[in-house]
Amino acid sequence: MVIIMQNKLKDNSVGIVLPKTVEIKYGLQLDCGKNLENFSLTYETYGELNSKKDNAILICHALSGDHHAAGYHSVADKKPGWWDSCIGPGKPFDTNKFFVVSLNNLGGCKGSTGPNTVDKKTGNEFGPDFPIITVNDWVNSQKLLADYLEIDTWACVAGGSLGGMQALQWAISYPSKIKNSIVVASAAKLSAQNIAFNEVARQAIITDPDFHDGRYNNFGVVPKRGLSIARMLGHITYLSDDSMRQKFGRDLREGKLHFGYDVDFQVESYLRYQAQAFVERFDANTYLLMTKALDYFDPAKEYNGDLSIAFENTQSRFLVVSFTSDWRFSSSKSHEIVKSLVKARKNVSYSEIESNNGHDAFLMPIPNYLGVLKNFIDNIL
Amino acid sequence: MVIIMQNKLKDNSVGIVLPKTVEIKYGLQLDCGKNLENFSLTYETYGELNSKKDNAILICHALSGDHHAAGYHSVADKKPGWWDSCIGPGKPFDTNKFFVVSLNNLGGCKGSTGPNTVDKKTGNEFGPDFPIITVNDWVNSQKLLADYLEIDTWACVAGGSLGGMQALQWAISYPSKIKNSIVVASAAKLSAQNIAFNEVARQAIITDPDFHDGRYNNFGVVPKRGLSIARMLGHITYLSDDSMRQKFGRDLREGKLHFGYDVDFQVESYLRYQAQAFVERFDANTYLLMTKALDYFDPAKEYNGDLSIAFENTQSRFLVVSFTSDWRFSSSKSHEIVKSLVKARKNVSYSEIESNNGHDAFLMPIPNYLGVLKNFIDNIL
Repeated sequence: MVIIMQNKLKDNSVGIVLPKTVEIKYGLQLDCGKNLENFSLTYETYGELNSKKDNAILICHALSGDHHAAGYHSVADKKPGWWDSCIGPGKPFDTNKFFVVSLNNLGGCKGSTGPNTVDKKTGNEFGPDFPIITVNDWVNSQKLLADYLEIDTWACVAGGSLGGMQALQWAISYPSKIKNSIVVASAAKLSAQNIAFNEVARQAIITDPDFHDGRYNNFGVVPKRGLSIARMLGHITYLSDDSMRQKFGRDLREGKLHFGYDVDFQVESYLRYQAQAFVERFDANTYLLMTKALDYFDPAKEYNGDLSIAFENTQSRFLVVSFTSDWRFSSSKSHEIVKSLVKARKNVSYSEIESNNGHDAFLMPIPNYLGVLKNFIDNIL
Repeated sequence: MVIIMQNKLKDNSVGIVLPKTVEIKYGLQLDCGKNLENFSLTYETYGELNSKKDNAILICHALSGDHHAAGYHSVADKKPGWWDSCIGPGKPFDTNKFFVVSLNNLGGCKGSTGPNTVDKKTGNEFGPDFPIITVNDWVNSQKLLADYLEIDTWACVAGGSLGGMQALQWAISYPSKIKNSIVVASAAKLSAQNIAFNEVARQAIITDPDFHDGRYNNFGVVPKRGLSIARMLGHITYLSDDSMRQKFGRDLREGKLHFGYDVDFQVESYLRYQAQAFVERFDANTYLLMTKALDYFDPAKEYNGDLSIAFENTQSRFLVVSFTSDWRFSSSKSHEIVKSLVKARKNVSYSEIESNNGHDAFLMPIPNYLGVLKNFIDNIL
């Protein structure tokens, strides 16, 4: 244990971290029309805020992520936070230099106010009554977190996938409060195919008899069948055809076909295992809500579909990154962002990273990717 | 009504057709080790068998297809058979010249012996006790149908997707009984990603509480939730990202977002409608069985993965066709077939058709595609 602890604390890890929770007592007007009178946000911080308070970086999570982006929660912890390869001493988000903030978004299921927390007005769990939250709502809630932390301006807001959408929205919503925006493996809007995959996942959850219109906790069950299907499907779209071939090929789990519906191929076993693990750690109502936030994001919509006009008032520098084998958020989606930023005469760098890891690449320690991030971030301060 | 009937009977339609069913009284040894003592096959024929009996073409169907490949079942019928654009007078499979046979495969749910038919031994419906059938088993059952029809040698065996696998297997299993093999939008084996999609579909069906271990008919229900999810997922993979963009874009069904889980986008409405229609016409046990036939197909497996050795004894000419936007059975899968045929010094033509219709393109009346088929087939006799 001592050795493990030493390993975690030395080198380039932020070490053991503890989440904090803040109650935000300002009302938040949501895009759906509802108003949240107050809410809690759970977050972690890595590094120190300097005296000028100009070294703060906000990390935004994706569909199934949370506030635990780096380090470990205990010495027994086997896995670090989800972006540990990028956050730590000497890493791209260098905690020797920056004060990094990572939160569980509103509507999440890891401490922040969401479907699985209690509505103080009613004394009952929100469940399906929790409002649908948009990327814009998240950014507004994150602004209130920044105010609480006395951070006037973010040196940078960064995220991958759904997190990248938040980094984009920050630049649009609060142009003077963000100096740099890092948008990785993301999109300015989902395609019909993306929405279709999300809809299949939602239907799997909603039609599970254990869903009980979202009040499953009242019945002492969870819609694990539906959530499993949603997660299995998600996994296929996070990996590339090529990476699945390399990882599993057509390898049989027991060396022979069974002529039945038990596991024949390794890839089937992998998907079932991943789904099982996910069901134990994630809330179905939150999953539904996150997919809707993805589907609804479309900042160009109110500008007749012209994204460059949506970017017109932005003041930040932008780094856009995509991965060659990512077919869920393909490079063409990043190109759309970059072209619109260029059209709006904004400062944008773009890098397409060679990788066969599909959408999951944004979580991987790919040297070129880390290098691109580091180069950009090193020039922030 | 008279006008409709005239339209259906004139031009290049085979007109009104009636399915036939034959009971095959020969035992069929299956790859799973079981033996079927006798079984029925439902089929349709279009055109006339000539006196030399050398003008017969076998059409093999895909996952959710059946024997009804061309023409109409009644004057009230709104939709023709699934390959009507290719089969008829003057069409690529020209019924003025050829005798075209199309069957519902063993294990299907449209008349042939399968999970939803009665096991004569027990007097009960087969249900989940129906054995897993392979592409090789189908070809053997089709050989018995050929014997019954007194067709010694097929002028051609043709099919798309899972149907193309049967056309390939015919050339391997009965080299002297097939003159030409047409393999459209198919593969010599599925990739891990393909298997993964099939596994998600199977899990959706099997974990539906109304599945009842496959004995749902005994309970007066069908696993419609699971079968719907399977079909929705299938549809996404049959279309291309591009065709979905053109067909639906991000169009809203009612012009506004609902901030709930009812239908917002047109693509969601389309998927739900398609799923509903499918559940009413298709059997869940058959769906499971068809996906396993796809997963298991791998003729190179017994030759150490060398497909060219599997093709060594084939005598037929081959036409292989793929479509540029088909990502479920991408052109690279057809290239694998073509390269192996070339390596085995076989007579093969290959055409990659420009199309944005995804995998579904093989069912579409794309002029270049029909032209390629027609050129090849016109030279058969």
